[in-house]
Amino acid sequence: MRTVEWIENCVRMIDQRRIPWELAFVDLPTYQAVAESITNMTVRGAPAIGASAAFGLALAAHTSTAATIDALLSDLREAARVLKASRPTAVNLAWAVDKLMAIAENGTITHPDELRARLLTEAQYIADNDVAINRRMGAIGAELVRDGDTILHHCNTGALATVDFGTALGVIRAAHEQGKRIHVLLDETRPRLQGARLSAWELEQLGVSYDILPDTAAGFYMQRGEIQLCLVGADRVAANGDFANKIGTYQVGVLAKENGIPFYTVAPTSTVDLALTSGAQIPIEERDKREVLQPYGFALVPEHYHARNPAFDVTPNRYLSGIVTEHGIARAPFTESLPRLVNR
Amino acid sequence: MRTVEWIENCVRMIDQRRIPWELAFVDLPTYQAVAESITNMTVRGAPAIGASAAFGLALAAHTSTAATIDALLSDLREAARVLKASRPTAVNLAWAVDKLMAIAENGTITHPDELRARLLTEAQYIADNDVAINRRMGAIGAELVRDGDTILHHCNTGALATVDFGTALGVIRAAHEQGKRIHVLLDETRPRLQGARLSAWELEQLGVSYDILPDTAAGFYMQRGEIQLCLVGADRVAANGDFANKIGTYQVGVLAKENGIPFYTVAPTSTVDLALTSGAQIPIEERDKREVLQPYGFALVPEHYHARNPAFDVTPNRYLSGIVTEHGIARAPFTESLPRLVNR
Repeated sequence: MRTVEWIENCVRMIDQRRIPWELAFVDLPTYQAVAESITNMTVRGAPAIGASAAFGLALAAHTSTAATIDALLSDLREAARVLKASRPTAVNLAWAVDKLMAIAENGTITHPDELRARLLTEAQYIADNDVAINRRMGAIGAELVRDGDTILHHCNTGALATVDFGTALGVIRAAHEQGKRIHVLLDETRPRLQGARLSAWELEQLGVSYDILPDTAAGFYMQRGEIQLCLVGADRVAANGDFANKIGTYQVGVLAKENGIPFYTVAPTSTVDLALTSGAQIPIEERDKREVLQPYGFALVPEHYHARNPAFDVTPNRYLSGIVTEHGIARAPFTESLPRLVNR
Repeated sequence: MRTVEWIENCVRMIDQRRIPWELAFVDLPTYQAVAESITNMTVRGAPAIGASAAFGLALAAHTSTAATIDALLSDLREAARVLKASRPTAVNLAWAVDKLMAIAENGTITHPDELRARLLTEAQYIADNDVAINRRMGAIGAELVRDGDTILHHCNTGALATVDFGTALGVIRAAHEQGKRIHVLLDETRPRLQGARLSAWELEQLGVSYDILPDTAAGFYMQRGEIQLCLVGADRVAANGDFANKIGTYQVGVLAKENGIPFYTVAPTSTVDLALTSGAQIPIEERDKREVLQPYGFALVPEHYHARNPAFDVTPNRYLSGIVTEHGIARAPFTESLPRLVNR
């Protein structure tokens, strides 16, 4: 079972807004519907929205009625624009769309149907490769986990955040599969509660011991010496190791450093954006305040109350113990280690 | 309008669990009902539960059918035990009960009805004095607030957390009344959302500019230089300045220090427990996990999911810029400054 897949000229994805209550799927017949599902977080997680955008562009090719390569390219450019605009922070989305568009634009494929087939093959490859990469990161990252460790985790970085298996939660899964006895403290991750709703649902199924924490309590357990390792994902990593991730990650990084706890992000090299020299250049999405005031339709307070809702923050590289990628673990100075891993 | 008051042989209090949806009152005819209302957080906030416990003990005296002073003292000792056990962390509760019991036990009052009257007078004094103390702390603390400041605030420390006016939110109110243009960022304060539900409700009525933040976002705005001051309350301050307060306060303190932002707790001297040499000795309450998983009856996740719910944390003194009391601002070294203010 995959978070996103191609099925009968549709993109099928798990509706993550319904988890943990039901495992429901939506079949999207147009690239516009795929873009909308990324924006409204039916699908979320940097690698998952990267694969979704790739399938979305393949879908744009399949649904286009263009009879010539030029007409098809014109349709694809518009679809690429719409898909890339669906969310701003994670770089995987642009990375995946650009990868397919480079194939479309390089001039070697001259027949529309040949291009349609080629783009679908490439999207499938991105999806399949994501799973392979995640398993590899899991094996590499699991070496950081010791028997008996309690691990703090923020947001959701599991199978649902990727095509399958997960990034940071994939490391936890790999350590569990190796027989290491671990306990996971899951930041619930307000406002959208990906930790409580998605990560807990995944760990329930995997049989991994866990507790959900209010986001206010992570520091409490760090201070008491009850956490040995912090693992998070990433939506975009700059060339110097600064990285954007779900709001609250910066706080976890600061608290981990203050308490002498190793703090790693687990991210495939497709999440690294070497074009950015620092995290200050990463665009941060601010989402609707209703996600804070009335999450999932439950009114915590009246809807006219005021709130802010930044969806991501940037953690400076100085808080990071390392970046687990599919090619190994990058460590400071990241300006040297990251390009070596990305360009190998 | 007061958070808690004596009315026709009852203790009347605002039901804080119904705010911001309605301003409802409960009339409690027995000290057991007062203790239960403290435990279930109908009333919360260290000074408010101190005054509630004082009224509760006066109510125990009034409802006791004892005809002799010895029989009344016996009833009062049992009521004192029950009231002090209603919540463990805030010292104000024990402080208020002990204050009344010292009067009961000192042997100068020998007639039951005289003691009944005297205890009610003392409870009224504690309540009235709380308001006076809060206004004084407001005036003292407002000197820390500059025109144009954005202030981060955690939990609720307003009129609702006290008999009236508030502690940290009282400082904000005083600065606003002085005409300073301020903006307040309110940590929503999971799991019980006192920031979003209670503090926002209070600032709406006072006309103070505010935004609710998910607890994950405070660091984001500190890092951007958008917060100039952090103000929080306290449930118990040890002799060295370590202090217990609502879960998440420790994180705010660490983040404030990391970002060079002044961080003050505002607490009457009744919150200081000089018997404790450090915060490590403060008992920390852990509450029902349902407050995390199904807040106010809304099921975020299935009820069998696992969660932890520590209600308080301890912030070490090294993160504190100072402690605002009704007698002035204590600064490091607190082992010298705090006894001077408490014993004056």
